[in-house]
Amino acid sequence: MSDKYTIGVDYGTLSGRALVVRVSDGKEMGSAVLDYPNAVMDRKLNSSGAALPPDWALQNPLDYVEVIKKAVPEAIRVAGIDAKDVVGIATDFTACTMVPVLQDGTPLSELPEYRERPHAYVKLWKHHAAQPQADRINQLARDRGEAWMPRYGGQISSEWELAKGLQLLEEDPEVYNRMYKFVEAADWIIWQLCGTYVRNACTAGYKGNLQDGEYPSMEYLGALNPEFARFAVDKIDHQIGQLGERAGGLTAEAAAWTGLSEGISVAVGNVDAHVTAPAAKATTPGQMVAIMGTSTCHVMSHDQLSEVPGMCGVVDGGIVAGLYGYEAGQSGVGDIFAWYVNNQVPERYFTEATAAGKSVHQYLTDLAAREPIGAHGLLALDWHSGNRSVLVDHELSGVMLGSTLTTTAEQGYRALLEATAFGTRKIVDTFNASGVPVKELIVAGGLLKNQFLMQLYSNITRLPLSTIATDQGPALGSAIHAAVAAGEYPTVEAAGNAMGKVNSDVYQPNEAAALQYDRLYAEYDLLHDYFGRGANNVMKRLKAIKREVHQ
Amino acid sequence: MSDKYTIGVDYGTLSGRALVVRVSDGKEMGSAVLDYPNAVMDRKLNSSGAALPPDWALQNPLDYVEVIKKAVPEAIRVAGIDAKDVVGIATDFTACTMVPVLQDGTPLSELPEYRERPHAYVKLWKHHAAQPQADRINQLARDRGEAWMPRYGGQISSEWELAKGLQLLEEDPEVYNRMYKFVEAADWIIWQLCGTYVRNACTAGYKGNLQDGEYPSMEYLGALNPEFARFAVDKIDHQIGQLGERAGGLTAEAAAWTGLSEGISVAVGNVDAHVTAPAAKATTPGQMVAIMGTSTCHVMSHDQLSEVPGMCGVVDGGIVAGLYGYEAGQSGVGDIFAWYVNNQVPERYFTEATAAGKSVHQYLTDLAAREPIGAHGLLALDWHSGNRSVLVDHELSGVMLGSTLTTTAEQGYRALLEATAFGTRKIVDTFNASGVPVKELIVAGGLLKNQFLMQLYSNITRLPLSTIATDQGPALGSAIHAAVAAGEYPTVEAAGNAMGKVNSDVYQPNEAAALQYDRLYAEYDLLHDYFGRGANNVMKRLKAIKREVHQ
Repeated sequence: MSDKYTIGVDYGTLSGRALVVRVSDGKEMGSAVLDYPNAVMDRKLNSSGAALPPDWALQNPLDYVEVIKKAVPEAIRVAGIDAKDVVGIATDFTACTMVPVLQDGTPLSELPEYRERPHAYVKLWKHHAAQPQADRINQLARDRGEAWMPRYGGQISSEWELAKGLQLLEEDPEVYNRMYKFVEAADWIIWQLCGTYVRNACTAGYKGNLQDGEYPSMEYLGALNPEFARFAVDKIDHQIGQLGERAGGLTAEAAAWTGLSEGISVAVGNVDAHVTAPAAKATTPGQMVAIMGTSTCHVMSHDQLSEVPGMCGVVDGGIVAGLYGYEAGQSGVGDIFAWYVNNQVPERYFTEATAAGKSVHQYLTDLAAREPIGAHGLLALDWHSGNRSVLVDHELSGVMLGSTLTTTAEQGYRALLEATAFGTRKIVDTFNASGVPVKELIVAGGLLKNQFLMQLYSNITRLPLSTIATDQGPALGSAIHAAVAAGEYPTVEAAGNAMGKVNSDVYQPNEAAALQYDRLYAEYDLLHDYFGRGANNVMKRLKAIKREVHQ
Repeated sequence: MSDKYTIGVDYGTLSGRALVVRVSDGKEMGSAVLDYPNAVMDRKLNSSGAALPPDWALQNPLDYVEVIKKAVPEAIRVAGIDAKDVVGIATDFTACTMVPVLQDGTPLSELPEYRERPHAYVKLWKHHAAQPQADRINQLARDRGEAWMPRYGGQISSEWELAKGLQLLEEDPEVYNRMYKFVEAADWIIWQLCGTYVRNACTAGYKGNLQDGEYPSMEYLGALNPEFARFAVDKIDHQIGQLGERAGGLTAEAAAWTGLSEGISVAVGNVDAHVTAPAAKATTPGQMVAIMGTSTCHVMSHDQLSEVPGMCGVVDGGIVAGLYGYEAGQSGVGDIFAWYVNNQVPERYFTEATAAGKSVHQYLTDLAAREPIGAHGLLALDWHSGNRSVLVDHELSGVMLGSTLTTTAEQGYRALLEATAFGTRKIVDTFNASGVPVKELIVAGGLLKNQFLMQLYSNITRLPLSTIATDQGPALGSAIHAAVAAGEYPTVEAAGNAMGKVNSDVYQPNEAAALQYDRLYAEYDLLHDYFGRGANNVMKRLKAIKREVHQ
């Protein structure tokens, strides 16, 4: 009897990656990537060449199907397996990324009459043009004391379904009215694979405001805009599927695209960060998974429902069925380090890094690591891209304090590394204080390669730190969900334990270092609250002036 | 009848410059510079090679005489004048720079038995190793409510005579006891020229704590250290000479060194910043002279005695006889810009500056100047080298607030330019609020070449701004004092009006820009007080940790 395999497809912002995984042990057999032909449309609409307003970000949904057609068969070829041995397929997607569709799933952007209508296209997660709508949504929810608000840390994002939907209604009511459903791309791609629309519990909860089986009320939505009253009922409500469930069988058409067998299991859609938890064998309470890249997403399951101030959301079954899934985030991490390297580091560091055979990031890290804790005399706030958790405020900005005439570029770099670790500690402390204790940090994402940074996080959070043992965390996580949907494992946890990969307890907190960092964290905490909680709104005022003069 | 000339000699930190000036109109005939052979001894003592402790900075006083011997005759040669037409000579010096001497003026460092004793050498102005003594001096003066403290903005510096003297006593009592007088280098060089020790009113007041004819009392000094009780009476008290007065006639020996005529007037000693005021024709009340280089020194005369919080000092006749001379300062200005360029600016700016035929400073300025006010969204505190006025606190440090992932290096540079202008506005506002109104800003020093910076200062202070019209402000100022001492003019003001050079009202405040900058200054002001006046002493705590871990 031959080995069985599943395929996980990870849909990122610019490309999709298919990974073939052995069901018995999670061995990664082969993978392939396809860059989306239309990439992200954030300056102009490709069909017409017309300019898009600021903060728009669209995609063409047909690009997602191209990933199935090209990357899946290529991954099978690279893996050197027989496609007949693949028993299931699953995907994970960016979220909230929304496709307006007809009743048969056809994207409105495919209708000849709407090809040049921006609102007919996919609104990508980072489409931020619905901020005015989000502001109204938050204000009204606060004024009315909407019960679902605390489930989202007290504030919802312009990226989410309500804001995107309200913008669509108000700016292009014709497209809005023509739309049968506003569908998460995470679910739309599953619909293309199995012919059935199943709404996954994860995005319905985190991005669609579904709590305890209910969406925001018609009264509330109608108060935002009378035409919006039935938005939830008409445009987003749909049968919910739990993560790891089977959404349907692969259609004959999708089988023909891929070479896979018709009828194999297609799992319910899912989200990149959330599938990574089982890929790192981290689905039990107390295990916080931090996916650290340009930004950091924190996901964690717990058996109790708690309201954690400033989290992104808590959703029943949001990570694994049967537990409450909590999500938090830091909106800038790796991209802050990249900004610093590109804009605040002199040439000599690049030259020396090249001579030493290191990346400039590693070189700066190594230089900075030589000094004892606090020797730089610096303290930074990691808010260059705003603060997602726990302040939920994108009007905040970065700070570097303590510079002298002898401060070096590597010292500034280290202060930024530390600031992001302090930001994580603030999230961990808030979870702990809210009845959701964090016992271990499991890191996935590109930054886990920086060993100094990992030890720093362990010291500053006083948590043991494990690292995922694959570069393909999300795709592996999807393959795990595919195996569960195919009935190969009874639960996502069980599949994760068999197929996931983690190096456990690689870093342990050093108590002497932790004590010293406590002193710096106390300073971070003080400035965090001073600038972040209204004592001095200088950051907001500076941003207001900036917007004003740029007009 | 041939033209008459005077010579001004400007003693800087690393070199001395002699300038020959025509008495009738201030025309600069020629100059010459000599680098001090021993430069600054801040790592080791040249005579022994022994390492010096941190924060020490010594000089060899014989180097000052070398300037007379070499630079003065060379300047006369370059000027192409007859040395016999020189009617007087004057000098200006760094301060507080102290020479321990025998009764005949011989520096203790010239005694064979003391040649390897660091405390026998000149303590240069930036010798900062007497900070522990300065802390005690300040604490005790506050505890006792010493009447002279408000004349120094409430705090005195480790650079001054009391601190340097107390350190000398406590660390090398033998040298202290052998010392006849502790003499300002400004007066010692005059002693070498005319054979007479005259203590100038300027340094006696600003650096020696002489107020209303009295030094700090024996009771106070004795409470610092019983052996120190007679410090003022025995070691620094001496006959005072007013600025612009004749100290004596050139000795035969000094005439032989220089080729000048024996007996010509030698003026009372003076200080670099203070002689610059008449060189810029700015000696009347309301005219604040800002000498802007690596740091900025502000000097200004007024007919009333006021206590301005955070000023460096007010001295009767401290700038010109008959008026109260006020001094304030910013401890970091040009050196902050230099630090930024050396440590926080990527290579592409240097490449582009070279291609554009500009200095990188000018290139960054030009790029930054394109944006409207506030477009960078940044706010900086210019405390990288501490804050001299009005906070008088060297434990403060620099801040950059408002950074985002799109912040550029030139935006950061502009925020620093603006921060130093806000620092000047804070000083101007404090003078205005203390009964010493500022009506005009007259800029001397290297930074006046940056036109954008000058307009910025005018806009931010809402003052008309004039610029000195010579690169040799201090040496010209000394030559002006030499002319007064020689009887060519009745007063320093009169000589300044004839010989000084200024481009008046080159920059006028733009009210629209001033209003916009008011909004940013309000933010600066808020952070200034928050970090500078005790609400959050994070900067001090970070510096304490830094010191601790460096030990």
